[in-house]
Amino acid sequence: MTTHESVTKPALPDVSGLVVGVLGGTGDQGRGLAFRLAKAGQQVVIGSRTAERAEAAAAELGLGVRGTDNAGCARDSDIVIVAVPWDGHADTLSALREELAGKIVVDCVNPLGFDKQGAYALKPEEGSAAQQAAALLPDSRVTAAFHHLSAVLLQDESIERIDTDVLVLGEDREATDLVQALADRIPGMRGIFAGRLRNAHQVESLVANLISVNRRYKAHAGIRITDV
Amino acid sequence: MTTHESVTKPALPDVSGLVVGVLGGTGDQGRGLAFRLAKAGQQVVIGSRTAERAEAAAAELGLGVRGTDNAGCARDSDIVIVAVPWDGHADTLSALREELAGKIVVDCVNPLGFDKQGAYALKPEEGSAAQQAAALLPDSRVTAAFHHLSAVLLQDESIERIDTDVLVLGEDREATDLVQALADRIPGMRGIFAGRLRNAHQVESLVANLISVNRRYKAHAGIRITDV
Repeated sequence: MTTHESVTKPALPDVSGLVVGVLGGTGDQGRGLAFRLAKAGQQVVIGSRTAERAEAAAAELGLGVRGTDNAGCARDSDIVIVAVPWDGHADTLSALREELAGKIVVDCVNPLGFDKQGAYALKPEEGSAAQQAAALLPDSRVTAAFHHLSAVLLQDESIERIDTDVLVLGEDREATDLVQALADRIPGMRGIFAGRLRNAHQVESLVANLISVNRRYKAHAGIRITDV
Repeated sequence: MTTHESVTKPALPDVSGLVVGVLGGTGDQGRGLAFRLAKAGQQVVIGSRTAERAEAAAAELGLGVRGTDNAGCARDSDIVIVAVPWDGHADTLSALREELAGKIVVDCVNPLGFDKQGAYALKPEEGSAAQQAAALLPDSRVTAAFHHLSAVLLQDESIERIDTDVLVLGEDREATDLVQALADRIPGMRGIFAGRLRNAHQVESLVANLISVNRRYKAHAGIRITDV
């Protein structure tokens, strides 16, 4: 699909028929991901605390995107991206344990603090946002991905391709393969398996470094993995 | 110099006349860095616990590389790369506080643990190896860089270019600029400022993820920052 595909890259499953939910789909990151996935032909449902806000955001996006409350979004989706703010992460997921049972959950939350010197990593008690999700959702297949995408680029309709890699973490090979395949659907993106959830913290908090890069170079930085 | 140079990238100083020391220069990472820097025309001194081992490794490398004990290496160099194993990090640096005073120190140590499931991040009490170095060397200008380089690629003489970015962290702009310029000397490499030392932990421990990438894809993975 892209010039970055390597001959050694294992074949990934077809995810084109799966419904993707985006919890926190009215935020910048969630809306941007919903837009890119819907534009790539994926069926997308965005969730928000109130159905009305989600419906309004969905109508704005078009592309067949539907909006509903977080519980409905979780229930109606095969793969559920968690794009809520870090401070609502635990509460949102705890409330959705039942709706998310059996689903593939993709945590893309970056626990960060901010002060005058910029961004810095917060260390969740569980080790990372993804590990917190796994602890709160024992009946779900929790993965972590989509941490390093610029919400500005995601939402810019004039941009056709976003050339970046998506690091995908998780314990369950079938689940990480599906999430990699989902990332591959977006032009320019490539899903790369990058380890187990115990190594999610550094992937999540690398966003603090990308924020420093963005400040210094006036960029919307992302990352690529070389030699893959 | 490379196609990755962006017009917005600030001009960097000339470091071609500076002497670069590599503490732990007989290890794979240190020897690889010494080789690449010497090959790029830099004056390089490698240090080891015993002068004899350093001299032997230097003779093997050729390219004008000298070898001596760690104290001599620190004393004779303008920029000192710390490439010692994590378990010798604190002791080595504590013993060199005087020799390293006033020097630019570049910590490239990745505190990792290993078990059956692969690599995982260790969290130094100070936050990161680089912050430990800064705490132990209050009279030095401590930066962090060169974490994500494959020792295999560095040491492979048949490889002319190593296409990867070098994330450079530190508090002192002049020091990080010099370290970026040093990275830029190696064909294919590019030094990118990536934040303060308080954000070094995730950069150091991202190596655990690259090890997972290497296992899955049989690669020698590195990273590139996009949009810079």
